[in-house]
Amino acid sequence: MSAFRLRDRVQAEDVMVLAAIARACGNFAEDEIAFVPEILAQLAAEGEAKSGYRLLVAEDDQGAAGFAIYGPIPATDHRYDLYWIATDPRAQGCGAGRLLLTESARRAAAEGATHLFIETETGKDYTPAHHLYEACGFPLIATVPDYYREGSGKAIYGGPLSGG
Amino acid sequence: MSAFRLRDRVQAEDVMVLAAIARACGNFAEDEIAFVPEILAQLAAEGEAKSGYRLLVAEDDQGAAGFAIYGPIPATDHRYDLYWIATDPRAQGCGAGRLLLTESARRAAAEGATHLFIETETGKDYTPAHHLYEACGFPLIATVPDYYREGSGKAIYGGPLSGG
Repeated sequence: MSAFRLRDRVQAEDVMVLAAIARACGNFAEDEIAFVPEILAQLAAEGEAKSGYRLLVAEDDQGAAGFAIYGPIPATDHRYDLYWIATDPRAQGCGAGRLLLTESARRAAAEGATHLFIETETGKDYTPAHHLYEACGFPLIATVPDYYREGSGKAIYGGPLSGG
Repeated sequence: MSAFRLRDRVQAEDVMVLAAIARACGNFAEDEIAFVPEILAQLAAEGEAKSGYRLLVAEDDQGAAGFAIYGPIPATDHRYDLYWIATDPRAQGCGAGRLLLTESARRAAAEGATHLFIETETGKDYTPAHHLYEACGFPLIATVPDYYREGSGKAIYGGPLSGG
């Protein structure tokens, strides 16, 4: 049913295109977006195992529509973090986010992950993202008020993965 | 009253000595301890501003007794994280932890930090550390059950800094 294809290989244009999607989706600060090229370069140079990062890009006929970056959390027992998930505004509401999240969770579980955690911000701007996490089986676990700035807290979603 | 001197410059022997303290204090996993030399090298090479790390070492006549590493959290508004605090077992109960924590908080506030957060583990092994955080004015804010492994959660302490 989905109009999206998925790929997990880094492509040269991802550095520009995925950073642009992260910026356009409006949920990340500039100094967070600055990490995207760095992470992609590390993944391309070192591979999934050494870098600790896995990429998933959802594409349609117009190119990349969204992406997710996830991987094992150091010093934990098979816990994974969904570090990034972002959908281009042109593709929002078409199921790209849900596809990226469920497929990241499925692949993490296939690698042996037992839990997936998602750290994000509290607040109204993030309501669609929060609904997505909850709809995919990752409820809100904890909040840290004022973590990012006055009135903007950290919200931690996640929990056990099924079928791990 | 304290028998400890403080220094904030990285010294060549820190790579070995501080990793040994982190290991001896028993509160860190080996793959966490592996980050200590990396962080110290980055701090020595790049300085506090670029690396994002600040070091504080408590010394007595036997050398380093404990250390703290703290710094601004990327993409936050003057929020700092106490990434590391560890006291050698030979010096525990002598106030080194309290000195390192209060001085890290004081220096962070002097740099403009408004909040300090401390992410640590839940569980009995960490009770002395938890008491220290609370005694120094950083209460438990949130917990994420089973974050590290079954039965071992993440505990987040911290809050606003006074005199920032």
